[in-house]
This record gives sequence, C-alpha cells and structure tokens, in this order.
Amino acid sequence: MSGQNGQAPAELLSANNITALFDSVDAFLFDCDGVIWKGDKLIDGVRQTLDVLRSKGKKLIFVTNNSRRSRRQYAHKFHSLGVSVSEDEMFSSSFAAAMYLKVNNFPQENKVYVIGGEGILEELRQAGYTGLGGPEDGEKRVQLKSNCLFEHDKNVGAVVVGLDPHINYYKLQYGTLCIRENPGCLFIATNRDAVGHLTDLQEWPGAGCMVAAMCASTEKEPIVVGKPSTFMMEILSKK
Amino acid sequence: MSGQNGQAPAELLSANNITALFDSVDAFLFDCDGVIWKGDKLIDGVRQTLDVLRSKGKKLIFVTNNSRRSRRQYAHKFHSLGVSVSEDEMFSSSFAAAMYLKVNNFPQENKVYVIGGEGILEELRQAGYTGLGGPEDGEKRVQLKSNCLFEHDKNVGAVVVGLDPHINYYKLQYGTLCIRENPGCLFIATNRDAVGHLTDLQEWPGAGCMVAAMCASTEKEPIVVGKPSTFMMEILSKK
Repeated sequence: MSGQNGQAPAELLSANNITALFDSVDAFLFDCDGVIWKGDKLIDGVRQTLDVLRSKGKKLIFVTNNSRRSRRQYAHKFHSLGVSVSEDEMFSSSFAAAMYLKVNNFPQENKVYVIGGEGILEELRQAGYTGLGGPEDGEKRVQLKSNCLFEHDKNVGAVVVGLDPHINYYKLQYGTLCIRENPGCLFIATNRDAVGHLTDLQEWPGAGCMVAAMCASTEKEPIVVGKPSTFMMEILSKK
Repeated sequence: MSGQNGQAPAELLSANNITALFDSVDAFLFDCDGVIWKGDKLIDGVRQTLDVLRSKGKKLIFVTNNSRRSRRQYAHKFHSLGVSVSEDEMFSSSFAAAMYLKVNNFPQENKVYVIGGEGILEELRQAGYTGLGGPEDGEKRVQLKSNCLFEHDKNVGAVVVGLDPHINYYKLQYGTLCIRENPGCLFIATNRDAVGHLTDLQEWPGAGCMVAAMCASTEKEPIVVGKPSTFMMEILSKK
C-alpha cells in the first residue's frame, strides 16, 4: 500500500507489528454505552482489558454522549460495576455542555434551563452556574386556560437539551419560550443520537428525540457539544 | 397586467368587481386557529361574517390542522362560542388521518397507536378502527430496569402523531417500537406546525414538535395528512 497526501502508508495489523503499535500509544479513549456496559451490565472482558492497559501504564479516558450522569456519577457507576475509574478519567456530554459555557465566557449571573438529567445540573453547578428545570420539572403540568400565561425566567441565557426520560410539555414550552423570547439565549444539545442504551435488553429514544422536538418548536438549530461534533475532542486534546 | 401561462390576467379587487367575485364563489374555506378563534375566544367579526355568508347561501367549510378534537368536538366548540356549525362542515387533521387509512384500505383488524388527543381516537373509531394510546397513556411511566423489556402491541399497523400536551417518554418509546419493529407500520403525522394556538395569550409547541421527536428516534419521515400537504384538499375537493 502506498501513502497518500504525505501520510505514512496504512499497514495491516499483524502479530509482528501490534506490540509496536500498542507501545506507541499513550492514551486509550473508550465509548461507554455498548462498549463498556449495556444498561447496568458490564460487557464481558472489559474489566480484564482495562486491567491490562493500566498495568502497562496507559492513560484511560471514558467518553460518553450520554448526559444523564455527571462525571462523579459515572465514576460511581464504574465503581458499582467493580471497576475503578476516577472522575478525571470521565468525559461526558453533560460535562461538555458546562465546559462549552465556560470556554465561551457565559455570564455566571445568567441561568441555564435544562431538559435532561441530574448529571447536567451537577456539572453546571460544578462549573459555577445556576441550572433550572431537569428532574424537578418532570411532574409539572401546563394550564391550558384562557387568560392564563405560561411564565418563564427572563434571566435564562442558555437551554441545554439532553436525553430526558421525563420529557413533558411543560419542559418543551419552558425551553421554547427561553430560546424564542430571551435575547441571545443559547440552544445547546448534548448530542443528537437517535437512540440511547438505557437498559440492557433494548434501545430507547435518544437525546436526538428531545433535541429534534425543540428544533421544531423553536425553528432553530442547536450547538451540539457531544459526538460527532468536535467540541469534546478539542477540549480533551487540551487535557 | 397581462396573463401568464394562458391564465386569466390578475385583477385588483375594487368596489366594482367584488360583488361579481363574491357571486361567483360557491364555497368558503376557513382556517380556525387564529382565524375563527384564539384559544377559546371567538375573534371579533367572525359571527357577523359567517351570518352574511350563510344568508347568501354559501357553503362553509372549516379546515384545521389542529388534531386535538374530532369534527363532532369542533362542532360542539363552535356551538359553545355561539356559532352554529355542523360536524359535516368541519374538516380537521384528526379526520384526515382516519380518512388516509380508509382510502388506503388499512385493515380493520390492525390497530393504530396514537400520540395526540382524544379527537384522533374518536375519528379512528368513527372510521371503524381500534386506536390505542392517546390521553390514556399520558400518565404512564417507563421502567428503566435491567432485564425489563418494554412491550408493545405487534398488531399496531400505524402510528398517528399530532399535537400532544401529554407527550411523555412512554408514548415516544411505544410509537418508536411500533414503527421500527412492526413490519410495514405506517408513520402518519396530522401536521408539522411549529406552534399551536392552545390558549389566547401565547403560542405553544405544535404537532411538529412531537412529529420531529418521532422522526429522530425512528430515523423515518412521516406521511403528513394536514396542511401544507395536499391530502386534505384532495379529499375536500371530492366532497
């Protein structure tokens, strides 16, 4: 095989060169859903593989588009599955959303409305921001009455949308009003995955489902911080 | 002004020709939300206008993309606002969804899952079909547990999606599984409007919001029966 565009030629992996490749790599990045676990079950061979990599002194990073948990909560999940992973080794789209606000100097006095899980709220808090919504709004209902105005906080300067199993009309209207009516309000999506692996036996509607709903009602497109956008990788490469 | 493509030349309306135009028209089609009413309030001048048209023997048709009510329920709404309109004069996207199934010979033994209001279920019943879901599933919650399978009816042959203020994750997963896993299952949208006029003081996320959510999780595009698709007009022109 010959190299193109000045790159080194591609080479098939074989028993001869795999050790050299392994030795040349300092860090391993892993996806989590469907790679490390399915729902709450560790996938066979994962523990042994990670043990080997750690024994060789490799740096491990666990990247996930799943925004339901914070990095701390993911480290706890690993621990509950018998695998030791630190918060610093986790990189979730919930963290990426908070980082996006931080690197773009989002004002601390502005609030962030969340359609998604507690993980996003926790990462926002850790980054010094005030989050609204999330699980707390899961049981709220709208009043569809004459002369009744649905109010929203005019200080919300960003709406973060991720996978939300407690999605409802209240949250959709709240987020829509913030994006439509608060000047300059950001619309941030953790990711647009069609499905999420919330349990081990089947797939579930992913963050893309809630994000698409918000795109339709706001008639706007979001800033996507998770994969396949490059934002997470850019932040990671700076670590 | 000169005519193009063989059409009669356009003519500005004036005091001289408006009577001739009015006399030449047999039927008047009206939109409802924002034209006849806002939320539960009749718009000024509507009653008088309709009275004049009826006194001149004009045929009236009320067309609405809003699928929350059946034609019977819309006639009742008109009555409650002090305007007499019959079920036969109504043409709603809830009815259009049922008509779509009928003209396409959808089997009576197949069921229809509904993300939307009671109006769709009532129109399905009137057309001889068995609807599932709708308001009944509004308070259902999903179980996100290991070894727990979310079951759906394998006899669902169509999913109808309209504006649903009781949208939740249960309905999104149910509809998604039907479309993804039941062979040939139809995905029908009453319409894709960004907003709905559910109350008089503000706009709310429209059917387009729920439809977009389902498009994202199924990775499929729906058959749209309401405006701006021509299906409703084709059925109307046959009346």
